[in-house]
Amino acid sequence: MTEVTRILARYVVGSRPDDIPAAVRREATRSFLNWLGCAVGGSAHPTLDIVLAALRPFAGAAQATVLGRPDRLDIFHAALLNGISSHVFDFDDTHLKTIIHPAGPVASAILALAEHRPVNGRDFLHAFILGVETECRIGNAVYPAHYDVGWHITGTAGVFGAAAAAGKLLGLDEQHMIWALGIAGTQSSGFREMFGTMCKSFHPGRAAQNGLTAAMLAKEGFTSSNRVLEAPRGFAHVMSAERDFTEITENLGTSFEIALNTYKPFACGIVIHPSIDGCVQLRNEHGLKADDIAAIALRVHPLVLELTGKKAPQTGLEGKFSVYHSAAVAIIHGRAGEEEYSDASVCDPRVVALRDKVTAKADPKIAEDEAYLSVSLTNGKVIKKHVAHAVGSLERPMSDTDLETKFHHLADLVCGQPQAARLIRLAHDIETLPDVGELARAAAVNQRRQAV
Amino acid sequence: MTEVTRILARYVVGSRPDDIPAAVRREATRSFLNWLGCAVGGSAHPTLDIVLAALRPFAGAAQATVLGRPDRLDIFHAALLNGISSHVFDFDDTHLKTIIHPAGPVASAILALAEHRPVNGRDFLHAFILGVETECRIGNAVYPAHYDVGWHITGTAGVFGAAAAAGKLLGLDEQHMIWALGIAGTQSSGFREMFGTMCKSFHPGRAAQNGLTAAMLAKEGFTSSNRVLEAPRGFAHVMSAERDFTEITENLGTSFEIALNTYKPFACGIVIHPSIDGCVQLRNEHGLKADDIAAIALRVHPLVLELTGKKAPQTGLEGKFSVYHSAAVAIIHGRAGEEEYSDASVCDPRVVALRDKVTAKADPKIAEDEAYLSVSLTNGKVIKKHVAHAVGSLERPMSDTDLETKFHHLADLVCGQPQAARLIRLAHDIETLPDVGELARAAAVNQRRQAV
Repeated sequence: MTEVTRILARYVVGSRPDDIPAAVRREATRSFLNWLGCAVGGSAHPTLDIVLAALRPFAGAAQATVLGRPDRLDIFHAALLNGISSHVFDFDDTHLKTIIHPAGPVASAILALAEHRPVNGRDFLHAFILGVETECRIGNAVYPAHYDVGWHITGTAGVFGAAAAAGKLLGLDEQHMIWALGIAGTQSSGFREMFGTMCKSFHPGRAAQNGLTAAMLAKEGFTSSNRVLEAPRGFAHVMSAERDFTEITENLGTSFEIALNTYKPFACGIVIHPSIDGCVQLRNEHGLKADDIAAIALRVHPLVLELTGKKAPQTGLEGKFSVYHSAAVAIIHGRAGEEEYSDASVCDPRVVALRDKVTAKADPKIAEDEAYLSVSLTNGKVIKKHVAHAVGSLERPMSDTDLETKFHHLADLVCGQPQAARLIRLAHDIETLPDVGELARAAAVNQRRQAV
Repeated sequence: MTEVTRILARYVVGSRPDDIPAAVRREATRSFLNWLGCAVGGSAHPTLDIVLAALRPFAGAAQATVLGRPDRLDIFHAALLNGISSHVFDFDDTHLKTIIHPAGPVASAILALAEHRPVNGRDFLHAFILGVETECRIGNAVYPAHYDVGWHITGTAGVFGAAAAAGKLLGLDEQHMIWALGIAGTQSSGFREMFGTMCKSFHPGRAAQNGLTAAMLAKEGFTSSNRVLEAPRGFAHVMSAERDFTEITENLGTSFEIALNTYKPFACGIVIHPSIDGCVQLRNEHGLKADDIAAIALRVHPLVLELTGKKAPQTGLEGKFSVYHSAAVAIIHGRAGEEEYSDASVCDPRVVALRDKVTAKADPKIAEDEAYLSVSLTNGKVIKKHVAHAVGSLERPMSDTDLETKFHHLADLVCGQPQAARLIRLAHDIETLPDVGELARAAAVNQRRQAV
């Protein structure tokens, strides 16, 4: 396999918007909408305050919007900030084959670029699709060995996606696109060791920034190897013990990874989602209240207890690692968004009382997106629910309405309901926009609001 | 080994300038001088024009000098540019144990910082020494496995050095220094696949920029893992098949890696240096001219022919990979600086004629820094030379005068002889400077000169 990088670059350069099937464009629009809500919502997180305090004195001209905030920065810093915002709640999209969160690196790079070089929505969405295609195919080629050894694949593969998408919008030819991928790849980085720290969301942010930088450098003739992906000392050999280059080179233009993108309905690790989903369904079907419940018994995939077995969480973050807390808020609030994982929610006496009535049992015969629930009521009745595929899975995707509700839950506290509604409309109609920069500017706020 | 990162951070935070032996400080001064000459000389390279054209529109305020040029940029971009300049000729310093070029990432980061936060020369040199200590110890811990698999260790280890040195000047405490190392490490990157392209010198530049960014973020409370070096999914496990953490944790404060730094007398790969050295010596001892010579026979380490066996180079860059061209210019010009590796020099008929009289034979019994030369003269005489250790090796270090001559050869064409002489004086006396920013500003030029 001698020309992997060239084949990929040639495809990205040659693809035209009309080549993309309508269903793929539609899923891309949903991916972008979900990303935008996560970024606007995440923008109020203290992590962003720290980054701005640290880097703002060195930033360039006010070229691009920092979503959900009053700040405008140069496009590189805007890409960094928006990439961080969009991942800081761990609430963004997931390409389940690789666990890449695809939108962050790509959308953050090109939305910032769109304010510097105006672009219409059709071309923007096309570049977004190609960027996601690039990063997910590269991820497919090295997953799982690359991930298992400790690389945060959203960062390591994401930087290629950002470069490809930005390079497409910059009109790079094949050689310059190859260089963009090379300059991006030689910056590929990010350890899973950083999970649980601010560096986790830094990874997609930096991937966006570095990929955008790579495309800008390539445009001016900055050279790299022509074989960053396949060379014996290139990405796939240096950063992975195993690799399959056909994942990159086959079926280009006929299969689209963004069609496999999924969106989280709940602001926590995906393994708890079937249990939360079942609780919400039972609550809504039976009009359940906390006082009605004597006990909740869950049967779940073994990973649930391994990853989220925290019995008595004390902070919002710990709540995300507690299936018990998650089931309790699902019954009480009917959802499990960022607010249900606040410190206040975790310490709420009603939640604590119900949480202590939840038991969970691991069963290796149960799939990862499956759960069995048995709820004993104080009136002696027992009600049951089998969740075969959790909402948000490929089999039971979030509906457009679900995505809009999620967007409002994330964004309303930051920018207010009317502005959030306008953003949803703009994102929904993105392919018709004459200037995507308009959408970015519509996500600015005059004054920063408090985080949830 | 559970606290490698903490032990290193604690050392860097606790070290005081007086703890550093005078001989170590002296070698640090020589390292800095050599770095400065390389950076000023390299600043005229077209690579820098490309980077400036691409990134300047997005750079911040005019905070720091781009050495050898009229431009002033924000400190992050200045660090990037100066790191690239200092490595673009492959003429900077070498830590032979790891093949790290130590000064680039560290000096580029903190010289830019020194224009933003004034610092005296004593503290500056101290931070420089600690940065080099950090990157070289981390390099020692993973060399050679890490390098062999394909990582460009100057970039991957350099980012830690830049963060440590910048963090020291920012006055970080132990926890914040740990975070600075963590944020730096999760950006560690750079493939050897990029050798021969502009990305090679991009690596130390980006390492300087990213390490400086890491220190700035840590200062404001941006968190990372506390165990970036030693964790199972941290640097040493993810990026190397083998590792020895005692290289990082033992003899801190008593042994100093910068004392093992070396400087290249010739602007080409180090394997050719013994042959060039021998030619220069014979030329000077016998007053040789090209016309006097019938044949030059070299006996060299096998790597010489493997890496630099190009018989008929056509460009300056190819000349660097030709032991034949190198021997010819050594006889004709008495040196092998950047000018002797210009396109014009490679095509010079006198050089071509002499080059064709050079033969080289590999001998596995000969060491890497050794060569045997036998020169047959047109008058029938044969003169011989055995170079046991090439000039520039630890056994035969460049003298201070050698370093100053090298500096002038590099810098005079860019900034003129008087300004170069002033820079040499300032670098020589760096420990006495009240404000190192003065030195940086003394390396600016009003107008860009032509590259050699």
